[in-house]
Amino acid sequence: MSLLIKNGTVINAEETRQADVYCENGLIKAIGHDLDVPENTEIIDAAGQYIMPGGIDPHTHMQLPFMGTVATDDFYTGTAAGLAGGTTMIIDFVIPAPGENLLDAYNKWMEWAQKAAGDYSFHVAITWWDETVSADMETLVRDHGVNSFKHFMAYKNAIMADDEILINSFSRSLELGAIPTVHAENGELVFNLQQEMMDRGITGPEGHALSRPPQVEGEAVNRALRIAEVLKVPIYVVHNSCKEALDEITRARSQGQRVFGEVLASHLLVDETVYQNEDWETAAAHVMSPPFRSSEHQDALWKGLQSGNLHTTATDHCCFCAEQKAAGKDDFRLIPNGTAGVENRMEALWTHGVNKGRLTMNEFVKVTSTNAAQIFNIYPRKGSVSKGADADIVIWDPKAKKTISAKTHHQNVDFNVLEGMEVTGIPSHTISAGKVVYANGELKAVKGAGKYVNRPPFADYFEAQRLQTESTKPVAVKRK
Amino acid sequence: MSLLIKNGTVINAEETRQADVYCENGLIKAIGHDLDVPENTEIIDAAGQYIMPGGIDPHTHMQLPFMGTVATDDFYTGTAAGLAGGTTMIIDFVIPAPGENLLDAYNKWMEWAQKAAGDYSFHVAITWWDETVSADMETLVRDHGVNSFKHFMAYKNAIMADDEILINSFSRSLELGAIPTVHAENGELVFNLQQEMMDRGITGPEGHALSRPPQVEGEAVNRALRIAEVLKVPIYVVHNSCKEALDEITRARSQGQRVFGEVLASHLLVDETVYQNEDWETAAAHVMSPPFRSSEHQDALWKGLQSGNLHTTATDHCCFCAEQKAAGKDDFRLIPNGTAGVENRMEALWTHGVNKGRLTMNEFVKVTSTNAAQIFNIYPRKGSVSKGADADIVIWDPKAKKTISAKTHHQNVDFNVLEGMEVTGIPSHTISAGKVVYANGELKAVKGAGKYVNRPPFADYFEAQRLQTESTKPVAVKRK
Amino acid sequence: MSLLIKNGTVINAEETRQADVYCENGLIKAIGHDLDVPENTEIIDAAGQYIMPGGIDPHTHMQLPFMGTVATDDFYTGTAAGLAGGTTMIIDFVIPAPGENLLDAYNKWMEWAQKAAGDYSFHVAITWWDETVSADMETLVRDHGVNSFKHFMAYKNAIMADDEILINSFSRSLELGAIPTVHAENGELVFNLQQEMMDRGITGPEGHALSRPPQVEGEAVNRALRIAEVLKVPIYVVHNSCKEALDEITRARSQGQRVFGEVLASHLLVDETVYQNEDWETAAAHVMSPPFRSSEHQDALWKGLQSGNLHTTATDHCCFCAEQKAAGKDDFRLIPNGTAGVENRMEALWTHGVNKGRLTMNEFVKVTSTNAAQIFNIYPRKGSVSKGADADIVIWDPKAKKTISAKTHHQNVDFNVLEGMEVTGIPSHTISAGKVVYANGELKAVKGAGKYVNRPPFADYFEAQRLQTESTKPVAVKRK
Amino acid sequence: MSLLIKNGTVINAEETRQADVYCENGLIKAIGHDLDVPENTEIIDAAGQYIMPGGIDPHTHMQLPFMGTVATDDFYTGTAAGLAGGTTMIIDFVIPAPGENLLDAYNKWMEWAQKAAGDYSFHVAITWWDETVSADMETLVRDHGVNSFKHFMAYKNAIMADDEILINSFSRSLELGAIPTVHAENGELVFNLQQEMMDRGITGPEGHALSRPPQVEGEAVNRALRIAEVLKVPIYVVHNSCKEALDEITRARSQGQRVFGEVLASHLLVDETVYQNEDWETAAAHVMSPPFRSSEHQDALWKGLQSGNLHTTATDHCCFCAEQKAAGKDDFRLIPNGTAGVENRMEALWTHGVNKGRLTMNEFVKVTSTNAAQIFNIYPRKGSVSKGADADIVIWDPKAKKTISAKTHHQNVDFNVLEGMEVTGIPSHTISAGKVVYANGELKAVKGAGKYVNRPPFADYFEAQRLQTESTKPVAVKRK
Ligand SMILES: [Zn+2]
Ligand SMILES: [Zn+2]
Ligand SMILES: [Zn+2]
Ligand SMILES: [Zn+2]
Ligand SMILES: [Zn+2]
Ligand SMILES: [Zn+2]
Ligand SMILES: [Zn+2]
Ligand SMILES: [Zn+2]
Repeated sequence: MSLLIKNGTVINAEETRQADVYCENGLIKAIGHDLDVPENTEIIDAAGQYIMPGGIDPHTHMQLPFMGTVATDDFYTGTAAGLAGGTTMIIDFVIPAPGENLLDAYNKWMEWAQKAAGDYSFHVAITWWDETVSADMETLVRDHGVNSFKHFMAYKNAIMADDEILINSFSRSLELGAIPTVHAENGELVFNLQQEMMDRGITGPEGHALSRPPQVEGEAVNRALRIAEVLKVPIYVVHNSCKEALDEITRARSQGQRVFGEVLASHLLVDETVYQNEDWETAAAHVMSPPFRSSEHQDALWKGLQSGNLHTTATDHCCFCAEQKAAGKDDFRLIPNGTAGVENRMEALWTHGVNKGRLTMNEFVKVTSTNAAQIFNIYPRKGSVSKGADADIVIWDPKAKKTISAKTHHQNVDFNVLEGMEVTGIPSHTISAGKVVYANGELKAVKGAGKYVNRPPFADYFEAQRLQTESTKPVAVKRK
Repeated sequence: MSLLIKNGTVINAEETRQADVYCENGLIKAIGHDLDVPENTEIIDAAGQYIMPGGIDPHTHMQLPFMGTVATDDFYTGTAAGLAGGTTMIIDFVIPAPGENLLDAYNKWMEWAQKAAGDYSFHVAITWWDETVSADMETLVRDHGVNSFKHFMAYKNAIMADDEILINSFSRSLELGAIPTVHAENGELVFNLQQEMMDRGITGPEGHALSRPPQVEGEAVNRALRIAEVLKVPIYVVHNSCKEALDEITRARSQGQRVFGEVLASHLLVDETVYQNEDWETAAAHVMSPPFRSSEHQDALWKGLQSGNLHTTATDHCCFCAEQKAAGKDDFRLIPNGTAGVENRMEALWTHGVNKGRLTMNEFVKVTSTNAAQIFNIYPRKGSVSKGADADIVIWDPKAKKTISAKTHHQNVDFNVLEGMEVTGIPSHTISAGKVVYANGELKAVKGAGKYVNRPPFADYFEAQRLQTESTKPVAVKRK
Repeated sequence: MSLLIKNGTVINAEETRQADVYCENGLIKAIGHDLDVPENTEIIDAAGQYIMPGGIDPHTHMQLPFMGTVATDDFYTGTAAGLAGGTTMIIDFVIPAPGENLLDAYNKWMEWAQKAAGDYSFHVAITWWDETVSADMETLVRDHGVNSFKHFMAYKNAIMADDEILINSFSRSLELGAIPTVHAENGELVFNLQQEMMDRGITGPEGHALSRPPQVEGEAVNRALRIAEVLKVPIYVVHNSCKEALDEITRARSQGQRVFGEVLASHLLVDETVYQNEDWETAAAHVMSPPFRSSEHQDALWKGLQSGNLHTTATDHCCFCAEQKAAGKDDFRLIPNGTAGVENRMEALWTHGVNKGRLTMNEFVKVTSTNAAQIFNIYPRKGSVSKGADADIVIWDPKAKKTISAKTHHQNVDFNVLEGMEVTGIPSHTISAGKVVYANGELKAVKGAGKYVNRPPFADYFEAQRLQTESTKPVAVKRK
Repeated sequence: MSLLIKNGTVINAEETRQADVYCENGLIKAIGHDLDVPENTEIIDAAGQYIMPGGIDPHTHMQLPFMGTVATDDFYTGTAAGLAGGTTMIIDFVIPAPGENLLDAYNKWMEWAQKAAGDYSFHVAITWWDETVSADMETLVRDHGVNSFKHFMAYKNAIMADDEILINSFSRSLELGAIPTVHAENGELVFNLQQEMMDRGITGPEGHALSRPPQVEGEAVNRALRIAEVLKVPIYVVHNSCKEALDEITRARSQGQRVFGEVLASHLLVDETVYQNEDWETAAAHVMSPPFRSSEHQDALWKGLQSGNLHTTATDHCCFCAEQKAAGKDDFRLIPNGTAGVENRMEALWTHGVNKGRLTMNEFVKVTSTNAAQIFNIYPRKGSVSKGADADIVIWDPKAKKTISAKTHHQNVDFNVLEGMEVTGIPSHTISAGKVVYANGELKAVKGAGKYVNRPPFADYFEAQRLQTESTKPVAVKRK
């Protein structure tokens, strides 16, 4: 139960230094040189390697029931694939159907997640509204370690939240010290454009992209940010895929608003030409929302990460195989939305981020782990290689190379949107709760070894928000 | 029936030149020097004065039934007051209640407008949606000279149009060659903030302003522009009152979108401190939507006009007397929204625009008359001192001064938001349909002399929009 | 000496209408229907065609002595080529060498221009500074019809104006009612980058583009605008080629500054890949400053034109043949900078502007003619099909097609950067001073028929600037 | 020589936690609970207080010879005043006169600084250029711990660096792994405006502000950033005082440029109305460059800090007494530029930043200490309460209050620009090198106890910059 990582360089968000790391009983016990360790301590020689906080993927959908089917990576295979890529924790989503009791849904997902091999937590989606929803939000925060609520601004006639729901739920979240998050696409426009594409005879996967142009996302991001601004609530925007979305976040942040932005590794690296692929299966395999964009958007997103206007990288990992995608053969609206990625996020980010000088190593740690931990208020337990933290660690070999492929990945799906990408810089070892779960290509994930991570409310930015709101609160004019 | 204006300087949007202007049978017949005119022609000596197209106020509400009462200026008194200030045409609004037949409403307003002293036309509001609305829109365009439809994004539980209505109506407008216009405030947020202010015990007129902050307007402008962009429809945003709104318009325009923006003279000149007035009546007299803003917004709006990002100046003329305003004595939500202004727009714009160097005289003509005529497709019949145009003319004395006051204005209301403003540059004469209707302080307006102005569809920018849409239209991928 | 154009549609900046146009003695005498004309009047049937103001190219360099050689189109061949393309007036540049007397230079250029076939005028460059320069500026304005002065912010060790010169000359221009114009590239950076490219062994034409990246232009535009803003002087920026430059202009304009922007037809239509051409001659033929840019810049520039943030289109016409370009075979710094284009500007703009819906026909007239006339204060004499204007007219056949080629163009140079471009919409006739100088493919230009156009100072925006400056002037604090 | 701080809450940039801190021999030896400490260890009870890294003021001018006089706070009194306010390190400036040998100047300042009571380091200014300057820069970096060079874009005819110097020095800095910094004001414009103000008879301190409007600063910031961008050099902009400057930084950062921005506490808190003071001495006491701005600039600067577009807070501490200021009684150009502030920076920031919710406590630590340490590459030795770091600590009492005043401050000057400001949250103790140098109002600074801090070159962002430059480097086209 004890492990010593020797001779490596520890990379944290704020600092780089040579040090050994000693783990015991799931925690990091000591960091330094010439550490006293018990006999029988397992030793990893990390010479020439980097010791970093295990990755946190704040946006996954394991075994999600969606569009008439179920995502193929379950909580075991999905988290195991994450471990193979250095990601030691995921934050998944509980998505109640409209009208469904929130706690029932929460319990259902908790049950599913029992088999997880790595740590996990849940955002809970608000897809409808009444007083019971408001009350259940409190229960979730108080008793179940939930500190974030998700809102879908798209998916009309399904789980879409209109402005009235957003306003109610954002206000309630603020009271509870939980942060609202949004999937930002204008669902009415998407619905209209989907119909237009079908009317034009555009039934293939390209119709998916054409019915979700960047403006649709930019509109929704702006709306969500403005609602949050007016209600004085911090906010987190998931999977920003385009310049329009980023520009709104940059604007809001530069005006002092507490806004956090997430970007998917795939949106940084895959472009919209995939939907022009003449092979239907290939094109359909890339169907996700928001869709992939043209290359100038990717360039903008990288700059957003570098400038600090985007904070976290995620995957929206949600696997569907060719057979499932085929449901939309004649109508792109029926193709299950989703792509895999939890396994490849860190190595792809390193290769195209660190190796190309877009990110320093410390910034890499921030955007793959630390920022998510801070925003979702589990830092420094997660997101940090520090004494007392959970022993979730990735040992990174900056010189090792591999080629990403569905043939070799651990994800339970037949396609990889990064197929063929050569990466330089990959995990040599992943440590979860102090145990080596991945070593030099061998995955040793243990079903059910993952633990649920309680996330307390009122992250520190809530206090700043409260003081600011207090110091600018409206007052009545005194009249006779 | 013939009139010669001599010795003046003609100011049009594109040009300034010395010339005499001869009018006959309601039209301008000749412009030049040494014109041959019939005997008995009335002659006005305009030496030292400017001869400009009569003002067009594209946003008024004469005798509007609203919030349980009726605006006090009717089509006669309101248009007459306009003539006294050099405004020879108004575009008012037909506002059907949700569920009300559009043509019934149109006919009702047409009936009311019979007594108008100056020319008029109507935007028609779309406050609900079904197939009959769609069909009636066509009838209005084809048979009744309507080429613009209005949408209220505020006024929840009343006339608010949600995104679904906006999308349907914008699309239909495009087909018909009519331009959609929007009152842009997020009605859900306003509703929420109104309740919050009441809950805080802020029941006075300041609560009105506090529940409609600039962000609420900025959000709605962005949303309307994005919907128009995605649907590829030109759009016109009424009464932009703040930097947030203007910034969206500036952005959209700089990205090549066909967007037109309107600003009210009052928003350029009155600031939000009026709601802090300790006299309830004074504060309430300023209640309108959007409310008055802080001075940096006024500065921004002036720059928007100067830069060409805002195109028209209007008044949203909608008069309610103290007695009517008193309905909201204990609840600002019940104060009828509206202020007067049709009479003072041009002189206030001249004084603070031309005299301070923010606008050239030609730009003044553009923003008070020509741009409205071009956008609403009645140029050069209106908006131009040119041969063949309607003889709607204002003769401007740039040296004459007066002090604006409710005591002396012709508007049928007991308050003037510009009370006490000294203006330099006022009309000496107003000519409507070739007749002198205002001369040196004497108003000679004739009840019923105003005519309805048919506005044909498909202004020239529609053809550009069509070509652009055509050249970028989506196509299906060919697959085996 | 009299000419009637019948059955066409007159397109002016502000309006489109069916009308005949009658010209006599070099002027437009009448516009309308059923015009009374003398016998023997030449008649052109313009049925199905557009009658527009002749183009004004505000930026050409005929027979310019530059970089050790002389541009091959002289004032005759160059203006004749312009006539063939519908351009009836050019504004060329007098460029004194540092230390050279301004009037001497002016007279030299005037002498050269005697043979011009179309009308012309001159911007005068300020390349050095002392009291005689200041005095000569006044003489040029007062006695020689010059109302604009040019400044090169690039070309270090040659004609570059540093900030001290810019400040002196801008201030002096304001006093004289003349508008300063700038070629905006940071000459120090260009110099440094040129050296860097040579040091890296990049000696080919691609080195030219690499040493003048968009940032170099963006910097200089911002600097020029800031200087003008601080000194409260209107300003005109020539040949904006990139988003960085346009963004600065858009910003300044949206903040109320009196700024005008020019764009070259070639920058709208040619992209930077030309410098990668493996044929040295082809690559070198495209060497001009600023260089061609990547396609996103072209997209931005079109939007700048459409939004009204750019005002004029020009060509920077400056021809050098392959033999001359060869001077820089081993060192791109020695390739004479310049490309042709005066003949093709209007047809290329029409094809890619009007036909693609980026510009309405009226906007086309604005950006090819009217705006230049207004900015340089010769409107409505130029830039307008109106009674009393110079009879400089192009009759446009919107259906006629041709393919642009150096083999068939009238420009005296062996290369055309638009080679192979198919255009739809070309002149059928060009009228200069009331005479048909180009008809259905036949050029009838007359050497020496062109006249110098005096441009009076104090265009109308100077008065607005003066009033604005006056109303914000600094005052001393009164202290005991 | 050993000290234990008990019962407090440690606030670092990345984290907040309860822990005791043990210091020995000038370093932090342990952080945690129930620490083993030697007998005789001095103990401070920090219950209810915060333990934070000592402040770093990256911009001071102790005993600067300037404008014919010498700043009144010398290295002893100035650093002692800093300690009284919780600032344990300053970075001052070596400013060689044009032509002066860099090492001579460096040695002179090092000599002066021997008496410092707190730690210090030096930026070195580049005020002229030749090969010896280039060589001396290397010596300073290699042998003297200098990793930043300063450039004045203002002060024409004195120490102003023109674009050629900037280009040479920025390029050289990049090679050496040192970061260039700039004082950004366009010196040519300032010179011109100063003359204009004098010509208008504006000789008082308001003339100082009027001759340095925000545009002058915005221009220079943009120029410096563009030069750095083109040369691919990281850059640090000192004392940004206005929205125009911040906007440029925000733009550059959002485009992925490595830019750092500094703001002065005084620019955040003092507005331009001070120059209108009718008392000449009071107005003159506020003369510094850039000058104080109107309140909307302060609002923007706070938002810049909050959004992370500004990184450090400084003071530009440079004291001149009334007698010295009087040199400019009849000509504001002769008033020595400078104000005090090193003592009050942290308490003013806390009061208006943390207490008003603009900054979290962790963000406060970042902008007062950690960011400076990271940018100038002395982290975690400075800027961090962590094991192994220098024991430079401030113990902060968030409830304690005081009123800032020249009567009570420790700065050796007769004026305080924050006079009368009530602050809540002040140091109870300051620890420098493990010793208590300030405790509950009593200053125990020791002359000469401060040490020079070597700053190594090549902070981590240089490696990212290098990789990015490498991956985008220009290449020659292959031609036959
Ligand atoms: Zn989503
Ligand atoms: Zn998702
Ligand atoms: Zn309205
Ligand atoms: Zn209205
Ligand atoms: Zn040029
Ligand atoms: Zn040129
Ligand atoms: Zn400075
Ligand atoms: Zn300084």
